[in-house]
Amino acid sequence: MAIIVHKYGGTSMGSTERIKNVARRVAKWHAAGHQVVVVPSAMSGETNRLIGLAREISAIPDPRELDMIAATGEQASSGLLALALQAEGVDARSYAGWQVPIHTDSSFTKARITAIDDARIKADLDAGRVVVVTGFQGVDDQGNITTLGRGGSDTSAVAVAAALNAQECLIYTDVDGVYTTDPRVVAEARRLHVVSFEEMLEMASLGSKVLQIRSVEFAGKYRVPLRVLSSLTDPNIPLEQEMQSGTLITFEEDAQMESAIVSGIAFTRDEAKITLLAVPDRPGVAFSILGPVADANIDIDMIVQNQSVSGHTDFSFTVNRNDFAKVVKLMHDTIVPAVGAREMVADENVAKVSIVGIGMRSHAGIASLMFKTLADENINIQMISTSEIKTSVLIQDKYMELAVRALHKAFDLETAPT
Amino acid sequence: MAIIVHKYGGTSMGSTERIKNVARRVAKWHAAGHQVVVVPSAMSGETNRLIGLAREISAIPDPRELDMIAATGEQASSGLLALALQAEGVDARSYAGWQVPIHTDSSFTKARITAIDDARIKADLDAGRVVVVTGFQGVDDQGNITTLGRGGSDTSAVAVAAALNAQECLIYTDVDGVYTTDPRVVAEARRLHVVSFEEMLEMASLGSKVLQIRSVEFAGKYRVPLRVLSSLTDPNIPLEQEMQSGTLITFEEDAQMESAIVSGIAFTRDEAKITLLAVPDRPGVAFSILGPVADANIDIDMIVQNQSVSGHTDFSFTVNRNDFAKVVKLMHDTIVPAVGAREMVADENVAKVSIVGIGMRSHAGIASLMFKTLADENINIQMISTSEIKTSVLIQDKYMELAVRALHKAFDLETAPT
Repeated sequence: MAIIVHKYGGTSMGSTERIKNVARRVAKWHAAGHQVVVVPSAMSGETNRLIGLAREISAIPDPRELDMIAATGEQASSGLLALALQAEGVDARSYAGWQVPIHTDSSFTKARITAIDDARIKADLDAGRVVVVTGFQGVDDQGNITTLGRGGSDTSAVAVAAALNAQECLIYTDVDGVYTTDPRVVAEARRLHVVSFEEMLEMASLGSKVLQIRSVEFAGKYRVPLRVLSSLTDPNIPLEQEMQSGTLITFEEDAQMESAIVSGIAFTRDEAKITLLAVPDRPGVAFSILGPVADANIDIDMIVQNQSVSGHTDFSFTVNRNDFAKVVKLMHDTIVPAVGAREMVADENVAKVSIVGIGMRSHAGIASLMFKTLADENINIQMISTSEIKTSVLIQDKYMELAVRALHKAFDLETAPT
Repeated sequence: MAIIVHKYGGTSMGSTERIKNVARRVAKWHAAGHQVVVVPSAMSGETNRLIGLAREISAIPDPRELDMIAATGEQASSGLLALALQAEGVDARSYAGWQVPIHTDSSFTKARITAIDDARIKADLDAGRVVVVTGFQGVDDQGNITTLGRGGSDTSAVAVAAALNAQECLIYTDVDGVYTTDPRVVAEARRLHVVSFEEMLEMASLGSKVLQIRSVEFAGKYRVPLRVLSSLTDPNIPLEQEMQSGTLITFEEDAQMESAIVSGIAFTRDEAKITLLAVPDRPGVAFSILGPVADANIDIDMIVQNQSVSGHTDFSFTVNRNDFAKVVKLMHDTIVPAVGAREMVADENVAKVSIVGIGMRSHAGIASLMFKTLADENINIQMISTSEIKTSVLIQDKYMELAVRALHKAFDLETAPT
């Protein structure tokens, strides 16, 4: 039978009762003859509690020590899950990242996995055990504990699945799959049975938040089939039914069951826009403006530069709203005088709405339908950015829900494709 | 300058404010030029919380997984202390047991330290760092996390001190030293400036509870000078004053500053007595009675067998009160019929009171003074047991405080020896 990796988030591990439910679900898979590796997150709230203690002591805690502290949450939850599996009559053993070992680089609090030794896990699987591996953490060359950053347990699970050549990596979470858009905004939002890895990548980075984006990249790189499904169903539902639930994220384009051109509508309010008006246009102006922003470790998302008119150009870009104040100060103090812009306009009240779909590659006119739909609703587009499989627009944030609902309807996402 | 090991208990580490106080104290030692290794316990309540979670899942949790869970408490507190030291401007780094490594056997939940690799600690000390090492835990030959059992952080500290050939191991706790007896029972109880390792061993095993007994054994074996002192004083008191505070536990007999014959009065209510009356006396009778008790993993403390009268003997022994019901059942069901005793008398209402003093070795008449003192108070002695440096009596428990106060006065413990 196949090797299957299960990943459970903090909510699924949120109490001893829930941990027992996880154990019942895993025991069902084990009883069906699968070799199961489980990667749990810390119990919900635990990581925040630990980091909160660290911040009470130090406003900017040393990342090495922060990882030492934060990694304990998953170690405890993994031990508890192993106990719960044993209580279900399943032979189980838990391992911390360093015990596997899961090798990482030394970028504390945001380490990257470099290699996973599969010998210990395989020996246990072959001995009939369920193996519990702590999510979120690893060990560097010097034997220091590292963590992968928030949501890193998804990445751990995918990496373990890749190392073991697992048949599927099941990400159990508190939603039952990936939707065409957020059901809280569009009541008719529909669960996708299959979504391509590229689409998922765009939807995750655009704020769908179902999966950590690095885990999706990892899955793509190692071609690990991922399934997002609910941990809130009865753990004893038939295995066949569970295997068809949720959303499968596939890297095989021709295996796609659904032929929609647009798969979903993503949106976010996390952006803020800065525009420099009438910048004297000369070679290197973009670098003069954005180089210092990058140097300050601030990620830039959308960038638009208009055609130069009489030697002057307008230059706009967006950053995460958390970085807004910092960027405004940087522009005002340094960049605006340096590049000789006439004026700066800064706007936090913006939202980004995107249509995502692998079918956009081969279909013309998709962007036009998007622009027409927004025009019909009298929504002004401030910026446009496109890639092969998505088109994003920046609009005034008060129109965000209206835009999402209109687009969901215009692209006929409420009905499943035939 | 010398290597000094500090150990802080759970109360001293009980909040981030207290952890900051610990850091201030350690920083003071470091600033004076000492090389300092700190061994902290988990934050108070944390180990109980973790074990409580494990017990919610499994009544008898797998010891390997229990250690995996319980060890996280010290890992978190060690990281927090390293952060607090850094906040004091001290370069500091924390290590979990497996990172040092502290090698142990595989007796999960009660492992014994077999070796400590000092290379990593020494390299950090030589680089001017304070090193924080998790108490309570180690790693076995197979790379499993082990714990040393309750109070094991004391043992960790002493073992680290032994491995580093430290000048002194300072056990910071919520009492300010070892007293002639419990000040809650005898108001005149006096702090001992120096106590011999053998006396401390007897006082710890008799229930003084200041130090875990295994840590004292360890200190004796490796001749590590131990000092018990308060973590509740102002962390900024002058170093000279702090170095003279508390109680020094020494293994050098001639270095002893105090010449008292009796150093302290220990007592405990944790015992219960079983007496088998009129047991037919024949070779092997003691083994017939106590062998099955030992087989049931029950520790026996005092044992008294009287002179045989007309072929019959009375046989008494004491066990921990927690084991009382189990032993009574074992006696009643099996042993009494097997050895042909006429009757069993079981009594929980007993207390053990002991006088402890290394001077007893060379002074006669000490036990007599004890018996006379108790007789003067009309306290009946039920059992007597003696060793080279202590004499213990079992009495009815309601007389315990009276006995302790009378003995404290009779041996003149309220005044310091000259």
